[in-house]
Amino acid sequence: MTDGIATIRYLTTASFGFGASQLIGEALAECGIRRPLIVTDPGVRATGIADQVVSALPASQEMTWFDRSPPNPTEAAVREATEAFHAGGCDGIVTIGGGSSIDLGKGVALLATHEGPLLRYAAVESGMDRISARVIRTIAVPTTAGTGSEVGRAAMINVDGRKLDFISPHLFPARALCDPGLTLGLPPYLTAATGMDALTHCIETYLSPLVNPPAEAIALDGVERAARWIEEATNDGNNRKARWNMMMASMEGALTFQKGLGAVHAMAHPLGALDELPLHHGTLNAVLLPAVLRYNEPAATEKYDQLRRVTGLATGDDLATWVAQLNGRIGLPDGLAAMGVPSEVLPDIAEYAEHDPATETNPRPATRADYEHMLQASWSD
Amino acid sequence: MTDGIATIRYLTTASFGFGASQLIGEALAECGIRRPLIVTDPGVRATGIADQVVSALPASQEMTWFDRSPPNPTEAAVREATEAFHAGGCDGIVTIGGGSSIDLGKGVALLATHEGPLLRYAAVESGMDRISARVIRTIAVPTTAGTGSEVGRAAMINVDGRKLDFISPHLFPARALCDPGLTLGLPPYLTAATGMDALTHCIETYLSPLVNPPAEAIALDGVERAARWIEEATNDGNNRKARWNMMMASMEGALTFQKGLGAVHAMAHPLGALDELPLHHGTLNAVLLPAVLRYNEPAATEKYDQLRRVTGLATGDDLATWVAQLNGRIGLPDGLAAMGVPSEVLPDIAEYAEHDPATETNPRPATRADYEHMLQASWSD
Repeated sequence: MTDGIATIRYLTTASFGFGASQLIGEALAECGIRRPLIVTDPGVRATGIADQVVSALPASQEMTWFDRSPPNPTEAAVREATEAFHAGGCDGIVTIGGGSSIDLGKGVALLATHEGPLLRYAAVESGMDRISARVIRTIAVPTTAGTGSEVGRAAMINVDGRKLDFISPHLFPARALCDPGLTLGLPPYLTAATGMDALTHCIETYLSPLVNPPAEAIALDGVERAARWIEEATNDGNNRKARWNMMMASMEGALTFQKGLGAVHAMAHPLGALDELPLHHGTLNAVLLPAVLRYNEPAATEKYDQLRRVTGLATGDDLATWVAQLNGRIGLPDGLAAMGVPSEVLPDIAEYAEHDPATETNPRPATRADYEHMLQASWSD
Repeated sequence: MTDGIATIRYLTTASFGFGASQLIGEALAECGIRRPLIVTDPGVRATGIADQVVSALPASQEMTWFDRSPPNPTEAAVREATEAFHAGGCDGIVTIGGGSSIDLGKGVALLATHEGPLLRYAAVESGMDRISARVIRTIAVPTTAGTGSEVGRAAMINVDGRKLDFISPHLFPARALCDPGLTLGLPPYLTAATGMDALTHCIETYLSPLVNPPAEAIALDGVERAARWIEEATNDGNNRKARWNMMMASMEGALTFQKGLGAVHAMAHPLGALDELPLHHGTLNAVLLPAVLRYNEPAATEKYDQLRRVTGLATGDDLATWVAQLNGRIGLPDGLAAMGVPSEVLPDIAEYAEHDPATETNPRPATRADYEHMLQASWSD
């Protein structure tokens, strides 16, 4: 299974397998891109991964680099990269990196062809209809497993200090080159954190009550893969099978976004927007997941039986405990306190969470008070 | 679950649920269609279903009818319907019916904008690249559950006496309106035959060795639904839950076509092309499935465990026997002989099957001799 490159078409076209990143030349040609802007971040550039991917292109290939993608995309960074896009006479974008770089690339694809400021295109401003097919074509090459943003239609960008969602079918990358080989060197902590991001996507989309059996089937498959392989991927980064399955779980978690997320993300969104404290989205998801699993169970008992089945638990076992213990084994913090979250922000976080779009697809309705309880339950072990 | 209309986006956009066919006006507007050609067959027209669907449109809606779709689409019928398309100054197509009408509509969508004859666009003539984005937009409204053609990129059309596949991403219907309500009156025999078509699609795509976990997850879900509900749908046509689930299984079986089919279809294709004997594709699949399941098992033991799990069988149970007995309970023939297939054609059928594209994705390689054995094993009970 882990050999060969598979083509998977669901809304987007993904080439998945070891070596898939070497298809960058074909992808550019298929998308009619002759002068790409290569978007990556300093960390990925420093590993040599981005240059390695680009080295598959002929020496004559025209391209412009933007390797200053910040840890979380900001409107300022989008503008800077867009200037580089125009200065280079670019006609397409290749993003190589984690969700931040991929989302930055989507921001450039938008701003390069739509009049700013970005705010008017944000989902909270009903901006989806203002995003047209003029969006520049992007090819996404993920280096984590991950946000799954390479097959997603959204970008999360900090605008005026707020983490805003930009959502449009035009923002789907034209091609995703999902190469598990690029994650072989991903350090254990990032492997664990991004892996829990993938697991949480799969669990939350699975539990969402929206009717979509195909998405639900994919989500459950992603839960099974992530649960089975996250420890191995964390402890033995060179395990190819583990890396393959974690990237597949990551992609599957994003293929299912159309089902909507849930309470974990409703809290992770505002927690991830605390300027003074940059918290990793995947780690936040991991730390919040146990309390949410306990909260949701009464509303989804049959689905929990399925979740226990695919995670190898017995009928009476507690899913939340399993996640908390898994977090411990893969080196993630045991609570928000350990992550440095100041307790004073919790009431505000609960208020935001109650109004976050993700709360609408949580299997059990949650009020501000419920969120305060879940946050307190996620405080420490 | 069976209430409400869900939007499911995988390559195409499907509105799924009781009443979804009433969204025809919105669908036309979203697709920019102002003068549709309505394609259906005499049988569906006679039931009143097609007129009922169309009645959701305002009385002022311009439209042209073509209700002479034959039991299997022919190039002649495609040409006739295309003339009606041009004569009516149409700018879009709505197909209401089973796979035959939906495929005829795809043929019109192609021929109305591409110079004939049809042969040059057939897959066997490497015609995919000759099919361009000029293809007319179609909205598919299935009345069986079914071929799943409403979410598929292929059309099967008789050209010069041969059943040829026309395959292109441009042939995906722009919208599928999957309304289980339209199948409430589907007679038991057609319910059983088209239901086994759906089950076979799900089983064959699941067993295909191509790597595509999302498709595989969807296929397995489709097997579970079809296995659970086909008898109820056949015996109690008014059972809404049964009709909903059979239409979902049908749609899922086509969402997974990208995995490729297998030995059942490799034989069903040439058997379905016998001019002197029009055989129902779904019934053929049902009759051929037990022998193929026996043949394939050594090559897919782990997947067979999953198939047993989702069909409610125990570890030692024989999947092939279960299918054969199911066929009997839902009133399908017990073999090719009972369908009137002349034994003299079997060697030729085996020869064709060996070279049918579907054989390439059968989990176990099959030669002409193997196909002769499977055909003989499918001869009678």
